Amino acid sequence: MKAEIITIGDELLIGQVIDTNSAWIAQKLNLIGIKIHRINSISDNREEILSTLNESEQRVDLIIITGGLGPTNDDITKKTLCEYFKTKLVANEIVLDDIRNLLNHRKINVNKLNQGQADVPENCKIIRNFNGTAPGMWFEKGKKVFISLPGVPFEMKGMIEKEILQKLTNHFNTQTIYHKTVLTQGIAESILSEKLTMWENALSEKGLKLAYLPQPGIVRLRLSAEGDNVNFLEEIVKNEIEKLKQIIPEYIFGYDNQKLEEIIGELLKEKNNTLAVAESCTGGNIAHLITSVPGSSEYFKGSIVAYSNEIKINILNVEESNIENYGAVSKKVVEQMAKSVIKLFNVDFSIATSGIAGPSGGTKDKPVGTTWIAVASKNEIISDCFIFGDNRERNITRASVTALNLLRKLIIKQIKNK
Amino acid sequence: MKAEIITIGDELLIGQVIDTNSAWIAQKLNLIGIKIHRINSISDNREEILSTLNESEQRVDLIIITGGLGPTNDDITKKTLCEYFKTKLVANEIVLDDIRNLLNHRKINVNKLNQGQADVPENCKIIRNFNGTAPGMWFEKGKKVFISLPGVPFEMKGMIEKEILQKLTNHFNTQTIYHKTVLTQGIAESILSEKLTMWENALSEKGLKLAYLPQPGIVRLRLSAEGDNVNFLEEIVKNEIEKLKQIIPEYIFGYDNQKLEEIIGELLKEKNNTLAVAESCTGGNIAHLITSVPGSSEYFKGSIVAYSNEIKINILNVEESNIENYGAVSKKVVEQMAKSVIKLFNVDFSIATSGIAGPSGGTKDKPVGTTWIAVASKNEIISDCFIFGDNRERNITRASVTALNLLRKLIIKQIKNK
Repeated sequence: MKAEIITIGDELLIGQVIDTNSAWIAQKLNLIGIKIHRINSISDNREEILSTLNESEQRVDLIIITGGLGPTNDDITKKTLCEYFKTKLVANEIVLDDIRNLLNHRKINVNKLNQGQADVPENCKIIRNFNGTAPGMWFEKGKKVFISLPGVPFEMKGMIEKEILQKLTNHFNTQTIYHKTVLTQGIAESILSEKLTMWENALSEKGLKLAYLPQPGIVRLRLSAEGDNVNFLEEIVKNEIEKLKQIIPEYIFGYDNQKLEEIIGELLKEKNNTLAVAESCTGGNIAHLITSVPGSSEYFKGSIVAYSNEIKINILNVEESNIENYGAVSKKVVEQMAKSVIKLFNVDFSIATSGIAGPSGGTKDKPVGTTWIAVASKNEIISDCFIFGDNRERNITRASVTALNLLRKLIIKQIKNK
Repeated sequence: MKAEIITIGDELLIGQVIDTNSAWIAQKLNLIGIKIHRINSISDNREEILSTLNESEQRVDLIIITGGLGPTNDDITKKTLCEYFKTKLVANEIVLDDIRNLLNHRKINVNKLNQGQADVPENCKIIRNFNGTAPGMWFEKGKKVFISLPGVPFEMKGMIEKEILQKLTNHFNTQTIYHKTVLTQGIAESILSEKLTMWENALSEKGLKLAYLPQPGIVRLRLSAEGDNVNFLEEIVKNEIEKLKQIIPEYIFGYDNQKLEEIIGELLKEKNNTLAVAESCTGGNIAHLITSVPGSSEYFKGSIVAYSNEIKINILNVEESNIENYGAVSKKVVEQMAKSVIKLFNVDFSIATSGIAGPSGGTKDKPVGTTWIAVASKNEIISDCFIFGDNRERNITRASVTALNLLRKLIIKQIKNK
C-alpha cells in the first residue's frame, strides 16, 4: 500500500519553514503498513495543486494533503479541491458548531472568515478538528482516498491520531512494515560496512533491508522488514540483531531513538551513582548534553571547563611539570583531570577531555583533531587518544560522543564486576 | 528563474530524518534570485529517480539533487545519473586525492568502497567536497543544470557556499535580491511587531519586504529588496535600518549571521579582556557556545557548572544561608556565583545563571522557566530575573542567549566609560 504526501505552502519553498509534518506522518503511516512513496512540497498555486493531485493519483492509492486551509485569501486548497473533484462548497453545521465552541472558549467572536471555514466540498466526509478552525476532509474516488488537513502541526497530529489512522486501517488492507535501528559508536561507516559484508548480503534473502545512517561520531544501522504478522517480523529482525551483536559487540550502544546521555543517565540512576566532568577541548558540550536530559540533576553534579592551563593547574590540580613535559593534550594531563574532578565533586564517575579542536593550534606531532579522553571511577581510569578531523564543530561533537560512550562502557564494566 | 529540489533517501520517506536541507537550500538560492518551484522527496529507487529527474527537467531550469551518494550499496544516485545522462563512470584523480587526504588525516586506510566514490559520471564537472568522501557533480544538458550533492548537511552546505552559488550566479542571468537581517534580543515577536507597525507599513511603498524570523530568545528581522542595481538596493535598505535603530536601539545586537558569542569574543579581544562563567540551569551550554568560536581560548578561561547546591557552596563559595533563605534560584545566589568566578578564574568579566529549566522542579512562586542571570565585571554587577517557558531545551537556549546579550551590554558600557 503506497501513499504520497503533498505539503502546500509558499513558506516551505522559500525555506522559512522546515517541513516536519511529513516525517511525522510517514512514521505514523508506516506503523499501519502504509509506505510513503513520495513527498511533494508545492506552492499555494491553483495549477500546481491540480497537477500534483493528478500526478499523485496516477501513482498511489492514498494522498495526504497538508496546508492551505487558513481563513485568509492566500489559502486556496479547499476551493481547488472542489475544482479537482468537480463539486461545490456547502456549509457544514457540525463544523460551524465546532468553530463557534473553539472561538467562544478563547473569547473571540466568529467573523465572516471563520464562518467560511465551515464550508466544505459537498463530496467529502469531514474530520473534526478540536484544536483549530479548519476541519479535515476525507475524499474517496473509486478505491483511492484523499485526505486534506491543516498544516499547523498539532492540529494535523490531533486528527491523524484521533480518527484517521483507525479509518485508514479499516479502509485499506495493508501489510505491516517493521523498523529497528541499531546505534553504533567508534567505527567509521566504510569500515563497518566491510565488517558487515557477509551479514548484510544474507539479509536480502530474508526479505530484510539495511540502511547506513551516519552522523558525527555515530553510525545508525536501520533494519526494515515487511509482512503481515508483526510478531514474525519482530522475530526475524531480532535474530539478525543477535547475529550483529556477535560481529560488532564493542560498537553497539543502543537502539532506535536512544541517546548516549540518556543511556548513561539510566545506568547512573540504577545504582545511585554520580558524575562530574572536566572539559578542555569540548568546552562545556559534554555537560550541556548531560544536562539536556530531564532529571539529570539527580546524578550530575557539575563540570569544570578548564580552557586555560592556569585553570587546569589551579582548580584541577594538574601538575605544571606534566603540562610542560607532555603538553596539555596528553595522557598524563587528561588522567589527572579525570582523577581531580572525582575528588573535587565527590562523585563516583568522571570524564575528562583535552584536545585540539581547531582550526588552529595543531602541530606536526599533534595535528588538529588530536584528542585525549579519560573516563574514571574511584578505582579505575581508562584513557585513549583519538584523531578526529579538521572541523572545530564536528571535533567537539565527536569528542563528546566518544567520551560519553567510553563512560558508558566503564559503568557497565563496573556494574558487571560488582 | 525556477529550480526544483529532489531529495533522495528512504530515511526521509519513513520519517526517520526530517528534510532540513531543502529549506536551507531554498534560502540560499532565493538570495541569488532563484525560486524553488517544488521539493520532491523520493526513495533510493532507480525508476523513481529516473522519472522524477525527467519530470523536473520538463518544469524548471535547475535541479538540485541531494542524497544517495554514500559508499554503500543502498546508495544508487550516481549510477542512476549515469543512466539518465547515458554516460559511464570514470575514475577521477582529483577526487581520489581528496578522499585519500581526508581519510589519511583520520588515520583510516582507503578501501574499495572509498575508492569507488572517486568514480564519477564522465559528463559531469566535479565539485570538491572537503568535508566528506562523496564529491558533488555538476551536469549541463542544453541550458539546464543538474547538481548532485551528498545528503549530509554540512558536506552539502560547504559545497553550496564555497563553489555552487558563485557558479550559478555566473551561469544564469538572474535579478539580484538583496537581503539584510537585523538581529534583536530580549523582545517578543508580537510586541516587536506592534512597535514597528508604522515603519513596517511604509516599507512596501518603497518595494521592500519584511520577514520576522523568530528563534528561541532572538527575533531576526529580514529586509529584502529586488532589482538590478545592488548599490541602490543596499542604500535604501541601509536607510530603513537607520530608522529602525531609532525605534528599537536597545534590542538590536547585530546583523546577518553574526552570533552573540562571536560579538562578545571580538569585544573582549579588543581590550585584551578575559571571561569565565558559572552555570547552573544552562548546564554548560554558555561555555559550549563561547568555545564554539575559533580562537576563544584567547579570552575564555573556563566555566564551573555547579549543578548541585553542594558545588555552589564548596567550589563557588556561595553562602549556605543564602541558599536556605532565598533558594538557589535567587538574586543573592546568582550574584555570589558571578563574583566568585571572577576571583576564582582571575578574569575581567563573568556570567552566572541559576534557574528552573524544567519540566519538573517548579513551584507556585517560582514556576518552571524562572531564571536569574547575573553578569559582572571587577567593579560592577547587573542581575535580573526572567520567566521563560515550560520547555527544557528552549529554556536553556533562551537563558544562554539572554545572558550573553546582558554581558555584551555590560562590556560596551564599560568600554564607553573608560
